[in-house]
Amino acid sequence: MAMFDIKTYLKEKRELVDSYLKSYFETPSEPSILHEAMRYSIFAGGKRIRPILALASYEACGGEPKDIIPYASALELIHTYSLIHDDLPEMDNDDLRRGKPTNHKVFGEAMAILAGDALLTEAFYMIANTNPPSRGRDRVGGSSDMKINPSSLIKIIHDIAISSGAYGMVGGQVLDILSENTKPDIDILHFIHLHKTAALITASVRMGPILADSDEDTLKALTRYGENIGLAFQIIDDILDIEGNAKELGKSSGSDKKKMKMTYPSLLGVEGSREKAQDLIAEAINVLRIFSSKADPLREIAHYLIKRRS
Amino acid sequence: MAMFDIKTYLKEKRELVDSYLKSYFETPSEPSILHEAMRYSIFAGGKRIRPILALASYEACGGEPKDIIPYASALELIHTYSLIHDDLPEMDNDDLRRGKPTNHKVFGEAMAILAGDALLTEAFYMIANTNPPSRGRDRVGGSSDMKINPSSLIKIIHDIAISSGAYGMVGGQVLDILSENTKPDIDILHFIHLHKTAALITASVRMGPILADSDEDTLKALTRYGENIGLAFQIIDDILDIEGNAKELGKSSGSDKKKMKMTYPSLLGVEGSREKAQDLIAEAINVLRIFSSKADPLREIAHYLIKRRS
Repeated sequence: MAMFDIKTYLKEKRELVDSYLKSYFETPSEPSILHEAMRYSIFAGGKRIRPILALASYEACGGEPKDIIPYASALELIHTYSLIHDDLPEMDNDDLRRGKPTNHKVFGEAMAILAGDALLTEAFYMIANTNPPSRGRDRVGGSSDMKINPSSLIKIIHDIAISSGAYGMVGGQVLDILSENTKPDIDILHFIHLHKTAALITASVRMGPILADSDEDTLKALTRYGENIGLAFQIIDDILDIEGNAKELGKSSGSDKKKMKMTYPSLLGVEGSREKAQDLIAEAINVLRIFSSKADPLREIAHYLIKRRS
Repeated sequence: MAMFDIKTYLKEKRELVDSYLKSYFETPSEPSILHEAMRYSIFAGGKRIRPILALASYEACGGEPKDIIPYASALELIHTYSLIHDDLPEMDNDDLRRGKPTNHKVFGEAMAILAGDALLTEAFYMIANTNPPSRGRDRVGGSSDMKINPSSLIKIIHDIAISSGAYGMVGGQVLDILSENTKPDIDILHFIHLHKTAALITASVRMGPILADSDEDTLKALTRYGENIGLAFQIIDDILDIEGNAKELGKSSGSDKKKMKMTYPSLLGVEGSREKAQDLIAEAINVLRIFSSKADPLREIAHYLIKRRS
């Protein structure tokens, strides 16, 4: 693995996911404006980190990444729905996302809410549809030849739902909103990041061992890896929000500060936050010690996340 | 079945569902305001028609209704989320629902959007959690002793997701919004009602034969029953909106007209609409002819729906 190049790996896996999503969403459907709004945000330049983590963790567990593309891609639908709803005027009120107008700026608030609702629902459809369905149109990119155990699919649906809903991402977003303009508190911040960001990232990493039917120790190790990189990911985001510029982040830098959001840099300083992120990444890589070189992509992704500039 | 009393049947089944939902939602959780917002709308007086239809169709297929309560109850979470989002100022802008202030009037718009998101997500969790989960808190009312085939669960998730998302309820809501103040057209109205209302009602009815592993003819008959009563249900709603009073409907009567919404009465007149609903109910009961007396609750529900006053 001396020649392993993380950038090439990320590019290849991103193309696998993009290609699946493109064929999945290309069928024209009514009402066309809704599908246009869904596509707009799905193809707004996302890095597909969550699907790639699922593919890499499946690979670490001895699987062939291309066998689980629909399940991995469903994670991107959930992530995208959460961005659309978070950007709404009632929430974070952001006009730009990855350098482009946010969904509601283009399609209006009603359509943005509904496009988010539809993407969240479609994620579960995308997972369930890979088991030969009894009804509904067959969409391009389907995979009725896949032979993943239905009880494994139920487990990932369970995992994704708990990580995305009131006990995960939505709960984190609620506390994030409630804590604006309140006294910074590291425990509250930890709760917010663990739920708002780390929960779905952890579910993405856990998808690999669950679909590969791995043993409990493997699942536990990858769960800890996911929680650690998930938190580190959010800390780096906070740092980039301060240090970054509008071009790199695709939104005005310092937008968190303007909204008086609680962040790691505001509590620990930029250097303290960077150290915290480095500790988390080191711990994430450490829990991977029980894995062979098949986990090298996961190791390199952890290194990459802390070095990223956008 | 001469003594069969539909009101008693509906009351008993509603209590089964309410009792499950009460124990499911009683565990205190953080952030408490989010869970309070979710509970507010779940316990705002819904008639639990969708869960009851699932229980009755399972019974028609030879099953024991109490064995599928969590799956049936998940339908109510999806229905409730759709009401919360539909009532938002950006959508139908309703202040009252079943005589009570709508979710966003009590908790604010951000929380209403998030409570809806959480309920939609929780519906899939509720279904997947009945297969013994590998993680997450065990909530009261769980049912790990249930032995429904995981591939049947995948099928109902598939069915519910396609009926609720872009190809079902959300798609119908989008066209409903788009068609306000446009020229009334029976084909568009049919599309709206079929998607916005009938799709999830049909999925509710189809839950029975899918979980009972019934044959294709049974599934087809119940699908037609569901589509027919689903459309009739919406037509009666439209009529009640005109004829009803605020007390019975829990919202200002004539609110559709004020918004220039396309309705059956505006296209066919009240009498024409009532005839249309009666034809649909007759057809629904006709397709049940292949069933024994076990389908009597479904037959009586069809009669009941057209006679209801609220």
